[in-house]
Amino acid sequence: MSSSSVSPLPFQVSRQQAYEVRFAANPEADLTAWIRAQASGGRVFLLADTRAWEHHGKDLLAQWDATEEPPIVIPFQGGEEGKSWSQAGRMLDILADLGFKRRDLLLLFGGGVTCDAGGFVASLFMRGVPYALIPTTVMAQVDAAIGGKVAVNHARAKNLIGAFHQPRGIWIDTRYPQTTSRAERINGFAEMVKVALLDGTPALARMEAGLPHLLTNHLQHADVVAMVREAIRIKLALLAPDPFEEDLDRVLNLGHAVGHALETAEAYRSTRHGFAVAVGLAVAARLSTVRGLWQAHWEERVMRLLLAAGLPTSADRVPVEEVWRQLQMIRNIRDGSLREVLLRAPGRCHITGDVSLEELRMAYPPRAHSPCLELECDSA
Amino acid sequence: MSSSSVSPLPFQVSRQQAYEVRFAANPEADLTAWIRAQASGGRVFLLADTRAWEHHGKDLLAQWDATEEPPIVIPFQGGEEGKSWSQAGRMLDILADLGFKRRDLLLLFGGGVTCDAGGFVASLFMRGVPYALIPTTVMAQVDAAIGGKVAVNHARAKNLIGAFHQPRGIWIDTRYPQTTSRAERINGFAEMVKVALLDGTPALARMEAGLPHLLTNHLQHADVVAMVREAIRIKLALLAPDPFEEDLDRVLNLGHAVGHALETAEAYRSTRHGFAVAVGLAVAARLSTVRGLWQAHWEERVMRLLLAAGLPTSADRVPVEEVWRQLQMIRNIRDGSLREVLLRAPGRCHITGDVSLEELRMAYPPRAHSPCLELECDSA
Repeated sequence: MSSSSVSPLPFQVSRQQAYEVRFAANPEADLTAWIRAQASGGRVFLLADTRAWEHHGKDLLAQWDATEEPPIVIPFQGGEEGKSWSQAGRMLDILADLGFKRRDLLLLFGGGVTCDAGGFVASLFMRGVPYALIPTTVMAQVDAAIGGKVAVNHARAKNLIGAFHQPRGIWIDTRYPQTTSRAERINGFAEMVKVALLDGTPALARMEAGLPHLLTNHLQHADVVAMVREAIRIKLALLAPDPFEEDLDRVLNLGHAVGHALETAEAYRSTRHGFAVAVGLAVAARLSTVRGLWQAHWEERVMRLLLAAGLPTSADRVPVEEVWRQLQMIRNIRDGSLREVLLRAPGRCHITGDVSLEELRMAYPPRAHSPCLELECDSA
Repeated sequence: MSSSSVSPLPFQVSRQQAYEVRFAANPEADLTAWIRAQASGGRVFLLADTRAWEHHGKDLLAQWDATEEPPIVIPFQGGEEGKSWSQAGRMLDILADLGFKRRDLLLLFGGGVTCDAGGFVASLFMRGVPYALIPTTVMAQVDAAIGGKVAVNHARAKNLIGAFHQPRGIWIDTRYPQTTSRAERINGFAEMVKVALLDGTPALARMEAGLPHLLTNHLQHADVVAMVREAIRIKLALLAPDPFEEDLDRVLNLGHAVGHALETAEAYRSTRHGFAVAVGLAVAARLSTVRGLWQAHWEERVMRLLLAAGLPTSADRVPVEEVWRQLQMIRNIRDGSLREVLLRAPGRCHITGDVSLEELRMAYPPRAHSPCLELECDSA
C-alpha cells in the first residue's frame, strides 16, 4: 500500500455563538417578550431556586398570560450542596421524565448555584439544550451567570466537573437582589471591585459612586444598575479573547489565588466566595505596593473601597503560613505554575509566578485594616 | 436613566479545533511518537476496556520505553451497561483521586462504549481535559470515535446525556479488531455501508471489494485499511458542515430512524446497533424503490452488499406495526418531525417527513431477503 493512501485525515470544527445580556431597567425591556423569544415556540421549563421562588415566583408567573401554556416549574435547592453530581443526575432524570425536547427552553431563576448547576444540566441533556438565565443575586448577575461556565462541585474541589455552555440570553433585574441578605449583596460586590480594578480608574470611580446605594439596598437606583451593567460589560470584554480559558495568565484571576487558598483553608465552611476574593484583592493590592509596581495611594483606595463595601481585607483566622501552604498545593495541581495577578495601576496588570513567602507575609494585611476580621458569611 | 445607558450587552464566542485521524498502516506511522505528541509533556492516563486490554495491553505498554513514566492504567468495564451516569461519576472520582492535571492526557483504548463514556468523562473533568482515542473495534473506528460526540445512556434513551468534545487525535490500527468476534466486526460494517451509500458509486464499489477480507478477518489487508479509511473520510466530510448537529435533516441518519425504532422495540436487549441500522438501510433502499426515487437495481445492490456482509435485512421478530408505533414515538419526541433519509442514487439523498404506514409495509423487507432473520447479537 502506498504511504499516501493511508495518510492522516484532517478534521476541523468551528462554532460561533452570539447572545445578549438584557436589562430590566431599559425602558424598552419586556420580560414576557424576552422569555417568548428565548423559548422560540417550545415549552418553558423553569428551574427555580426555592428561596428566590418564594419571593418572586408569583410575579414571575404573572408574566405568562392566560392564552399561553404556563411554564413547568422545577424547584431547585440552592446552596453549595445543590451543586453536586447527584443533584445534577436527579435534574436530568426530571427532564427525561417530563419529556424535555430539543426545542424547549430551560429557564434558570436563582443565584450562582442555580446558574452553575442548572447550566450544567442544560449542557448535558441531549448533548446541550437551550437555556436562559434570570440571575437573582448580585453575585450571579455580575459573575456566575456571565460567560457560559457551568459546573458542579466535587468532594476534592469546587467546580471540578463542568462544561462551557453558552445560554440563549441573560436577563438582569437589579430588583431581585433586594430580597437577599446584606451579606449576600456584599458578597457579589467583591467581583465588581475586581473587574473595575482590571478596567481602569473611571470604572473604579463609578463603583465608588454606586456602592452606597447597593449597601442601602436601593437596587433600582440608576447608579446601581449602571454599576452592575458595567461589571458585566467589563467581564464580557475580558472573557472575549479567551472564552474557554486556554490561557493560564487570566487577569480575571485577580484576587483568586489567595481567595481560593483561603476558601480551601476554611474547607468552604463559612466563607462566601466574594469575601475570600476581597481578601485576595487586598493582598494583591498590597503586594503591588510591596513590589513597587504602583504607588501606595492606589492600595489605600482599594482598601477604602473594600471596607466601605463591608468586605473583609484580612483573614485573621487563617495564618499566612497556611495561605502559603495552600498556594503551594494549588501550584502543584497546576503543574508547578502559580500565576499571581498584580497591578501597575487600575487597568494595568502585571502577572508573575514568583511571589515569595516573605513578600506574602508583608502583603497579608494586618488586622487594623479591617472591621470585618473573620471570614464569616453572615457577619455583615 | 436614559435608554442607551442600559442597552443590551452583546457577547460573541467562537472556537476552532483541528486534529487528525492517523493510520497505523501508514509506513511513517509511529504509535510511540503519536502518544508522546498527544500528551505534550503531561502524564498519560490510559482508560482501557478490560477485554481489549487483555488482548493488547502488553503490546501497548511495550510502546513506553524504560526511561519514560509509564501510563497510569484505569480499567474500564465495556458493554452498554458501562455507559452510565454512575460509572461516569466513578471515573471522575478516580481522575480526581489520582490528581489528573490539565496538561495530562486521557488516552482511551477500547470499543464504542469506551470511546463514548471515556470521552464524556474527559469532557466534564475541569470543564474538558485533553483526550485521544485508540478505538479497537470496527464500529468504534468508523463511527463512535469519529466526530467528538460523547455520551452515556439514560434509562429513557440511549446517549441522552452527553456533550461534544473533540479529541486531540485518533489512532486507527485495523489489527485490533482481529481479536473481536465475527459478529462484532459485522456490526461495524453497517455504518460503513451507510457512508458509502451517502458518498456515491465508487465508494460503494470499494466497500464491495474490501468486504470479503473484513469477514475473513484479514484486517491488515490493504483493501480493509482503505475501506476503513474511506468510511472515516466520508463521515468526517459529512460532519464538517454541521458538527454540532443543529440541522435535523442529517443525511448521516440514513437507516437510523427504522434502526432506532427496532432497537427501542427490542429494548436494546439483543440487538447490536449495526444490525438494526442494516435493517434500516434495507428499508430505506426499498422505500426509495417504492417511491420510484431510484431504480430497483440499486436496491438489489444494497441488499446484496448487506447480505454478503452477514448483516440482516429484515427483522421478523418485530412486526411492521410495532416499528410504525416506535417511529411515531420518535416523531413525538422530535416535536412532530420525523425525517426519513431516502436515496435517488448512491450519493444523492432525498429527505422526507411523510412516509406512510402503507409505504412502510411495502418496504419492510420480507423474510426471503435475509439469511440472518433474527436481530440477535451473536447469531453470525
